[in-house]
Amino acid sequence: MFSFKHTKPESMSKDNVSVVPPPTNFSSRKRVMRFYNTPRIIGRMSVVGEKESKGPLGKYFAKCETDDKMGEKTFERAEIRMFDTAVRGAVRDSGLDIKDVDLLISGDLLNQMTTSSYAARDIGVPHIGVYGACSTMTESLLVAASFVDSGYFSNVLCATCSHFATAERQFRFPLEYGCQRPPYAQWTVTGAAASIVSTNNADTERFPKIVMAIPGMITDFGTNDLNNMGAAMAPAAMDTMCTLFTQTGFCESDFDLVVTGDLGKLGSDILRDLMRERGMKLGQNYIDCGNMIYDVKQKCYQGGSGCACSATIFNSFILDKLVKGEYKRVAYLATGALMSTQSCYQGETIPCISHAVVVESPFGGECE
Amino acid sequence: MFSFKHTKPESMSKDNVSVVPPPTNFSSRKRVMRFYNTPRIIGRMSVVGEKESKGPLGKYFAKCETDDKMGEKTFERAEIRMFDTAVRGAVRDSGLDIKDVDLLISGDLLNQMTTSSYAARDIGVPHIGVYGACSTMTESLLVAASFVDSGYFSNVLCATCSHFATAERQFRFPLEYGCQRPPYAQWTVTGAAASIVSTNNADTERFPKIVMAIPGMITDFGTNDLNNMGAAMAPAAMDTMCTLFTQTGFCESDFDLVVTGDLGKLGSDILRDLMRERGMKLGQNYIDCGNMIYDVKQKCYQGGSGCACSATIFNSFILDKLVKGEYKRVAYLATGALMSTQSCYQGETIPCISHAVVVESPFGGECE
Repeated sequence: MFSFKHTKPESMSKDNVSVVPPPTNFSSRKRVMRFYNTPRIIGRMSVVGEKESKGPLGKYFAKCETDDKMGEKTFERAEIRMFDTAVRGAVRDSGLDIKDVDLLISGDLLNQMTTSSYAARDIGVPHIGVYGACSTMTESLLVAASFVDSGYFSNVLCATCSHFATAERQFRFPLEYGCQRPPYAQWTVTGAAASIVSTNNADTERFPKIVMAIPGMITDFGTNDLNNMGAAMAPAAMDTMCTLFTQTGFCESDFDLVVTGDLGKLGSDILRDLMRERGMKLGQNYIDCGNMIYDVKQKCYQGGSGCACSATIFNSFILDKLVKGEYKRVAYLATGALMSTQSCYQGETIPCISHAVVVESPFGGECE
Repeated sequence: MFSFKHTKPESMSKDNVSVVPPPTNFSSRKRVMRFYNTPRIIGRMSVVGEKESKGPLGKYFAKCETDDKMGEKTFERAEIRMFDTAVRGAVRDSGLDIKDVDLLISGDLLNQMTTSSYAARDIGVPHIGVYGACSTMTESLLVAASFVDSGYFSNVLCATCSHFATAERQFRFPLEYGCQRPPYAQWTVTGAAASIVSTNNADTERFPKIVMAIPGMITDFGTNDLNNMGAAMAPAAMDTMCTLFTQTGFCESDFDLVVTGDLGKLGSDILRDLMRERGMKLGQNYIDCGNMIYDVKQKCYQGGSGCACSATIFNSFILDKLVKGEYKRVAYLATGALMSTQSCYQGETIPCISHAVVVESPFGGECE
């Protein structure tokens, strides 16, 4: 069993930098945003790569790209194309036209979020860029739901993406190096996903609604291994999950699913430990997308990671079940690791964040 | 006179990628967000480096750091420290305590926005990361004003920063190389700035209010020179400024100041040309922060750039005059270039964005 140390690493103490934040008082600060005007997810699309399409959830994804470069010259260009496909697919799915979309809120993992910006350039919709690494999907849903709930805009697109080859090149080593991966590594999901959040009207009552959201707190327990994202991100998920449970009065069993982003096998085990230490033992309703997307035979070690990991699963499998009423209420806590290679080279540890949204089925009970 | 070509560069046409977006119909899509519950800027702080403090606006900045490393080991650490100083200074200026702050919305130029995330880790406030390169200040003010206006939160911090040495290392060359700078280059401002946006109450009526905001549209006219940011960003400022004038009915003379972010001398000349072509000739009320921050004797060629360029000027000089009532209404359009070095190496051009906020003096006329 992995033993998680809540201690300050040697390398940091020399600089007299406080890595470990003081214990959070989960109920002291108002963090839950409640949406009373029923922002709904009226359209969505998930695109994945070949490996993801062969995993246990393969049949749920709307589109599979069998070529990692998708006919483009570079992996970066392929990622832009995938993002574009997801965005246009979500617009089509909603029955809207791209000119009816008021705003695109998106982000991705690459430096300066180039995938999302370059794709948005060609989509031609006003753009708000958000950065939360792999927590981008919930961050963009949070902002979109608030804009729609408050009446500033009617139809807001949320989107994100990641690509195994671009992420490896940027954060670790280019694939051509053929580096060996440690057993606690995860596999960046190649995929893109988009949702359209829209105000309530007669037509849209059959769609799932976003009832609340929680912006994440940056949390750093001192992990500094670029391969071990699950261990780094688990404390951030713990912070947001504790806030969710303490500030809303809900517990795990009030949700059909409490789902984290991409902690993977190891990270979600750590999260269970951290929650148990705080008296909130997680049971069968808790799952992690990183733990679900690949089969153990696919040799992805601890599972999937990347912005697209939870975004593609949320916009396929999870929303499918919410639309049908098989799930009544889902808490979705995507998790992101906010380091850069530069910060890691300079001896910094990895700060992480987890933004949450609570989504209810149109056939579900109202959230109080 | 610089001749601005609205043509697709050769390198892009081969890939069959549309660089130049179709002409925007500025009035077709609702883009203006109006705030009716008077979100106000109740606290602020600007920190700058030594060079900036010796410029024409030096006396307005709240703090000057004379050491580029600020006693830290790296320029990146210095940038984090500066960000922290600005944020804590703004909180102090507002008379609040850090525990009264509900949310921090921030971003910066570095890969994965590490300055802002690492600083936010120690500040201990929930965080929303936004990326708009040098347009970050207006992007965060837009999101903060909407969150406060809608009642989700009461006190939201907005912050951003940039540092000459970290930006040069990342986007061009490390300073130690001693590269020569072309005459159309700008100088990244070393500085950080923060504002607190808060809801209206008796105490706060003496503070400037954010009355509207416009999210930017990503615009790319085909510039691909990493040194020529002004030329790249001018079309984005033009798009947002045209939207402001056509969708609100205001013209330049309705504002005491229409201020762009960091186009610099060349970029603001290009913007004047672009606006004149569209029948909206800019007069004396238009200024550019990049053009103001350095004296010509300081040899910064076209002027300042970077997230901190307009953010520090807005949070000192401009807000000073709004607080006193010397300016009644200001349109602030920060501009950002969204490329990465990777995207430029791969032959891509530079997409840009400009988000706008309109701020009124507490003694000003109401916006309709």
